[in-house]
Amino acid sequence: MAARQAKKPKDPTRKAAKGTGNAAPAHPRADAGDDTDITALDLTAAQLSPEMNAYFKKCEEKLGFVPNVLAAYAFDNAKLEAFVAIYNDLMLAPSGLSKLEREMIAVAVSSHNRCYYCLTAHGAAVRSLSGDPVLGELMVMNYRAARLSSRQRAMLDFAVKLTDKPWEMEEEDRERLRQAGFTDRDIWDISAVAGFFNMSNRVASATDMRPNPVYHRQAR
Amino acid sequence: MAARQAKKPKDPTRKAAKGTGNAAPAHPRADAGDDTDITALDLTAAQLSPEMNAYFKKCEEKLGFVPNVLAAYAFDNAKLEAFVAIYNDLMLAPSGLSKLEREMIAVAVSSHNRCYYCLTAHGAAVRSLSGDPVLGELMVMNYRAARLSSRQRAMLDFAVKLTDKPWEMEEEDRERLRQAGFTDRDIWDISAVAGFFNMSNRVASATDMRPNPVYHRQAR
Amino acid sequence: MAARQAKKPKDPTRKAAKGTGNAAPAHPRADAGDDTDITALDLTAAQLSPEMNAYFKKCEEKLGFVPNVLAAYAFDNAKLEAFVAIYNDLMLAPSGLSKLEREMIAVAVSSHNRCYYCLTAHGAAVRSLSGDPVLGELMVMNYRAARLSSRQRAMLDFAVKLTDKPWEMEEEDRERLRQAGFTDRDIWDISAVAGFFNMSNRVASATDMRPNPVYHRQAR
Amino acid sequence: MAARQAKKPKDPTRKAAKGTGNAAPAHPRADAGDDTDITALDLTAAQLSPEMNAYFKKCEEKLGFVPNVLAAYAFDNAKLEAFVAIYNDLMLAPSGLSKLEREMIAVAVSSHNRCYYCLTAHGAAVRSLSGDPVLGELMVMNYRAARLSSRQRAMLDFAVKLTDKPWEMEEEDRERLRQAGFTDRDIWDISAVAGFFNMSNRVASATDMRPNPVYHRQAR
Amino acid sequence: MAARQAKKPKDPTRKAAKGTGNAAPAHPRADAGDDTDITALDLTAAQLSPEMNAYFKKCEEKLGFVPNVLAAYAFDNAKLEAFVAIYNDLMLAPSGLSKLEREMIAVAVSSHNRCYYCLTAHGAAVRSLSGDPVLGELMVMNYRAARLSSRQRAMLDFAVKLTDKPWEMEEEDRERLRQAGFTDRDIWDISAVAGFFNMSNRVASATDMRPNPVYHRQAR
Amino acid sequence: MAARQAKKPKDPTRKAAKGTGNAAPAHPRADAGDDTDITALDLTAAQLSPEMNAYFKKCEEKLGFVPNVLAAYAFDNAKLEAFVAIYNDLMLAPSGLSKLEREMIAVAVSSHNRCYYCLTAHGAAVRSLSGDPVLGELMVMNYRAARLSSRQRAMLDFAVKLTDKPWEMEEEDRERLRQAGFTDRDIWDISAVAGFFNMSNRVASATDMRPNPVYHRQAR
Repeated sequence: MAARQAKKPKDPTRKAAKGTGNAAPAHPRADAGDDTDITALDLTAAQLSPEMNAYFKKCEEKLGFVPNVLAAYAFDNAKLEAFVAIYNDLMLAPSGLSKLEREMIAVAVSSHNRCYYCLTAHGAAVRSLSGDPVLGELMVMNYRAARLSSRQRAMLDFAVKLTDKPWEMEEEDRERLRQAGFTDRDIWDISAVAGFFNMSNRVASATDMRPNPVYHRQAR
Repeated sequence: MAARQAKKPKDPTRKAAKGTGNAAPAHPRADAGDDTDITALDLTAAQLSPEMNAYFKKCEEKLGFVPNVLAAYAFDNAKLEAFVAIYNDLMLAPSGLSKLEREMIAVAVSSHNRCYYCLTAHGAAVRSLSGDPVLGELMVMNYRAARLSSRQRAMLDFAVKLTDKPWEMEEEDRERLRQAGFTDRDIWDISAVAGFFNMSNRVASATDMRPNPVYHRQAR
Repeated sequence: MAARQAKKPKDPTRKAAKGTGNAAPAHPRADAGDDTDITALDLTAAQLSPEMNAYFKKCEEKLGFVPNVLAAYAFDNAKLEAFVAIYNDLMLAPSGLSKLEREMIAVAVSSHNRCYYCLTAHGAAVRSLSGDPVLGELMVMNYRAARLSSRQRAMLDFAVKLTDKPWEMEEEDRERLRQAGFTDRDIWDISAVAGFFNMSNRVASATDMRPNPVYHRQAR
Repeated sequence: MAARQAKKPKDPTRKAAKGTGNAAPAHPRADAGDDTDITALDLTAAQLSPEMNAYFKKCEEKLGFVPNVLAAYAFDNAKLEAFVAIYNDLMLAPSGLSKLEREMIAVAVSSHNRCYYCLTAHGAAVRSLSGDPVLGELMVMNYRAARLSSRQRAMLDFAVKLTDKPWEMEEEDRERLRQAGFTDRDIWDISAVAGFFNMSNRVASATDMRPNPVYHRQAR
Repeated sequence: MAARQAKKPKDPTRKAAKGTGNAAPAHPRADAGDDTDITALDLTAAQLSPEMNAYFKKCEEKLGFVPNVLAAYAFDNAKLEAFVAIYNDLMLAPSGLSKLEREMIAVAVSSHNRCYYCLTAHGAAVRSLSGDPVLGELMVMNYRAARLSSRQRAMLDFAVKLTDKPWEMEEEDRERLRQAGFTDRDIWDISAVAGFFNMSNRVASATDMRPNPVYHRQAR
Repeated sequence: MAARQAKKPKDPTRKAAKGTGNAAPAHPRADAGDDTDITALDLTAAQLSPEMNAYFKKCEEKLGFVPNVLAAYAFDNAKLEAFVAIYNDLMLAPSGLSKLEREMIAVAVSSHNRCYYCLTAHGAAVRSLSGDPVLGELMVMNYRAARLSSRQRAMLDFAVKLTDKPWEMEEEDRERLRQAGFTDRDIWDISAVAGFFNMSNRVASATDMRPNPVYHRQAR
C-alpha cells in the first residue's frame, strides 16, 4: 500500500536496452513515466544472438517498435529465445482458436490479474484484430458485459475460472467446452494460453514492466 | 456463468427514452450492442419535469449527448432528480479534492468493481480532465501501477480499501489521509465519492447499463 | 488491526450538532461511547435551510430524535438535502417492494458489509415494521437462516450477490427475480436500495458513524 | 442459494427431545420457526445417563430452559457428555481470561462465521455478563467498531485472524498477545475458545440449529 | 509475513512432556526442528490423572509414541481428558462413516486450512487405513483430483464447503448428502468431524504445534 | 462440485504416448488411476524430432522414466520443445538461486494453487535435492510452518504473494528481497520461476494431468 519509492541510480549500460525501438518520442502526452524505464530491475542488456537481433529488427519493421517485454527479457539471450518460442507458438501457430480468440483470452486473464503491461499491449491487439475497439475495452473492463457468442463466452469462462481457482477445474468444466464445440486439442490451447498469461502477468507485475506507450492509441 | 440469453420483446414506448441523445449513429464501428438498449430492464420513459428537460437539453448542448445513466433514471422523474442532485454535488461542488481527483476515485472504485458503464464514462473523464490518456488507462487497469503523488496514492488506497473491505476501516486509515495532507472535510469527500460509485457501479451492473459509445474515443 | 487511537480535541462549535436530538441521556447503560461523537471527523455544523430545520423538527416529533446520519451530514446543507431526497425516495416512495422489504434489503446488505451504524438503525426498522424481533436478528446475523418466502429469499440473494460480486450480475440473475414474481421496475428498486446501502455503509464505516443508542432497544 | 425446501415428516419420537425446556411458548411473537425444530436432522433422542439428566435439570433450574445445542446433542449420550465436558472446561474453568472475555471471543468468531445459533446464544451471554447491551450488539455486528481496551482488541484480532486465515498465524501474532499482557497459557485459552467456536459454528450451520427464542430478549 | 523469531528460553520442567514417546531419535534426517519443541508456547506439564497416564502408556504400546497433540494438551489434565473424549468418540466410535472416511474428512479439512500438524498426522492415518499411499497424498494436496466414489466425493464436498463458507450451508447441501446415501445421523457425523478439525487445525496453527516426525514416513 | 464423470472411450493411438516411460508397473499399490491416463484430453502422440526423442531417452536413462508432463506435451513437437526450453533454462541454468531454492518456489506456488501434478513431482524434487523429506512436506503443506532462513522466507513470501495477488506487487516487495540479499537478477529469477509454475499449475489442473506414481515414494 505504500507510495512508490524513488529508485536507485541505474547502470548506464542499461540505456541501450531501454531505448530499443522507442527512439522516437512519438507520444509526448504520455507522462506516466512509461518511457523512462522498462522495468524496475537494474539489468544490463546482453549480447543477443543473430536470430534474436534479426527478430528485433523484424519487430521494428512490422510493428514500428520492439515490444517492451522483449527488451525486458533481453538481459539474457537464452531466456529471450525461450520466451519468444513459447509465445509465438501459443499465439501464432495453427490452432482451432483464431488469433483474435487467443488475444481475447490474454486480455480477460490479464484483467482478472489487473496486469497493466498485458492489458495495454493485448488490449490493443484485440482492438486491431477485431476492428472493434469496444470489444477491446470490454475485455479489459469485464468480459461478462460483452455480447459474445456462446462459444466465446464458454472459452472465457473457462480461462478466467482457471485463472481464479485452478484447483476447482474438473471434468464438467472441460465438458462445457466440448458442448460449446471445442475439441480436446482446443481445450489444450485455451488452457495453455490462459496459463501463459498467468505467467506473463506475474513476471510483468513483479518487475513493474511498462508497456510501449504506442499501444494506448492503437486501433481506437 | 451462463451465456447471455435473448431478451424478451420490449415495450415500444420505451424507444423514446432509449434514443435520447444518441440519435445520430456516429460510431458505426461499435458493435457491442451498446447502442441498442440502455439497460436490460423494460421501463417506460416518464414525463420529465421542466427542470429535468432543461438539464437534458443542457447535456446535449455541452456534451453533445445525454449520458445514458440519466436516460436510465428517466423512467421516474423523482429518482432522476435525486440522482442528479447527489451526483452534481459530489462531483462538481467546491471541495478540497479537484474534479480530476474525484474522477480518479470514481474510476479506481469502478475498476475494483469491474463496472463497464462507469469505467467507460469516468475513464473518459479522467483522460479529458488530466489531458493524460495514459492516466485514464492506469485508473481503469490498476491504479497501483500509476506514478502518483503520495497524496493521490493515499487517497486511492483509502477509496479502494473502503470499497473492498469497508468493515476494516479504522482510525489509522483516516490518520494516513491526514498525514498525506487531507482535512477531515476532505476525508468526508473521499468517502462520499467512493461510496457513491459503490452505489452507481451496482445499479449499473444490476441493470446491465450500457455507456454511450462516444465515451470510448474521447480524449485518447 | 491496530487498537483505536485517542482522538484529538474537537472543535467546540461541533457540540451543537452532536447534541441534536439526543439531549436527554435516556440510555445510561450505553457505555460504548456512542453518545459522545457522531463521527470520527471534526466537522462544524452548517446553517441549515428552513426545509432541513423543519425536517429535523419533524424527526424529533415523530421519532423522538434526529437520526445521527442526518446530524452527520448537517455540516453541509446541500449534501444533507441530497441525501434526504434520495433516501426518502428509495425507502418511502411507492414501490412494488413493501417498506419492510426495503428495510430487509438494507440490513442484509449492511450485514455483508458489517456496518455497525446501518445494522443498528435498520435492524430496529425491520423489528418495528415486521413486529417480529427475531426477523430483525436474522437479517443482522445471516439472512440465509431465516424462514423466508421464495420471493423474499430471491430478493435478498440478488441484493447480497450484487453487494459481494457486482461484476458477476447477469441476465440470469434478473430472470430469477422475474420468476419470483418481480417486475422490471421492482428489479430496479431492489438494485437501487442495495446500491444505496453499499454507499451508506461505506460513508458510515469510513467516518466511524455511531448510531443513536435508542435504536438498540426498539421493538425488542 | 435455493429457497428453503419443505422438510420431510419427522419421526414422532423426536418430539420428546425437541420439547425439552421450551414447553411454555413464552414468546408468541417469535415466528421465525425457531420453536418448531431444533435442527434440520431427524434424530431420535437417546436415553441419557443420570449425570446428563441431572445436568439438564440443572439447566432448567438455573437458566429456565435447556439450551438447544444440548438438546441437539442428546441423540447420543456419549457425544453429549464429551461436548458438555469440553464446553464447560473452556468457558467456565479458571483462566487468565474472564468469562466475559471468553464470550466476546465466542461472538466475534461466530460473527465472522455468521452463525445464527451462536450469535444469538452467546450474544445474550455478552449482554448479560457485561451489563452492556451495546457491547453485545457490537460483538455481533463488527467488533472493530467497539471501544475496547488494547488488551481486548488484541485478543479479538488474534481470534478472528485465527478464524479467517489459520494458515497465516505466526510467532509475531503470538508476540502481539504477549505484548498486550497475555501469558502463554492465556494464548492457549484464546486459541482454544476461538477454535471451539469454529467447531460449534460449523455443527450449528451444518444442521440448521435454532436457538431457544428466549435468548433474543435477554439483557436488552 | 515476518521471519520466525528466536524463542525465549523454555521452562526446564517442560522437557519431561516434550520428550514423551519420542525418546529414540529414529529419524536423524528430520532437521525441520520438529523434535525440539512441541508448540511455541511455554507451558509446564501437569500432573496427569491415572487414566491419562494409562492412556499415554497405551499410546506408546500401540503406536510406539504419544502423539504430540496429546503432549501439548498435557499442561492441564482436564483439558487433556476433554480432548481425548471428544476425539475418540468422533474418530473411533460406531458410525455410518468408516474410520478411513473420517480420516479423509480430517485431511481434506486440514488441507483447506493448511494445517501442518494435522496434515502430517492424519495424512499418515489415511495412508495406513487405506493401504493406498497415493490416496493420502491426494487428500493432502487436492481431494478434487482423487478418483472417489460419488458417496465420498459428496461427503468431502460438504465437509470442505462447511469449512470454507459455513454461512452458506443450507437444506440443499444436506439433501445432496441424503441423495448420496447418507442418513441424517451420518450428516451429523460428517459435520461433527469437519467441525472438530476446524477446531484442531486452529489450536495447532495458533500454537505452532509440530507433529511427531515418525508420521512422515508411515505407510509410504 | 459434481462427481467425476466417466470418460468417453479414448483413441487407441494414444496408448503409445500414455505408456511412455511407465512400462513397468512398479507401484501396484497406486490405485488412484494415475497410471491409466496422463491427462483427461484425448490427444494423439505426435512424431517427435530427433532432439526430443533423444531427450526422452535421456530422461529414461537418468530418471528411469519420462515425466508425464513431457508425455502430455508430446502431442505437438513444437510445443514440447518450447516447454522443455523454458523449463530447463528456468530450473537448471546458472542463477543466484540454488536448484533447491527454485524447487522450493515451485512447490510453495503449487501448494497455493493446490496442483496435484506439480506438488507430487516437485515435492519429490525438494526431498531429493535437500535430503530433507520433512522440508518437502512443509513446502507442500504450508511453507510458513518451515524453519527457514530469512533469505528463503523472503523469497517464498514474494513468490506466494505474486501468486495470490499479482496486482499488489510493488517496489516495497522488491526492496524486501534486496534487503534479504537478493540481486535484481535474482528478483527476476524468483519472479520467473513463480510465474512459470502459475502457468504449469494451470495447464496441469485444466487437463487433469496425473504425475508418474514413482514420485510419491522418492526420497522419503
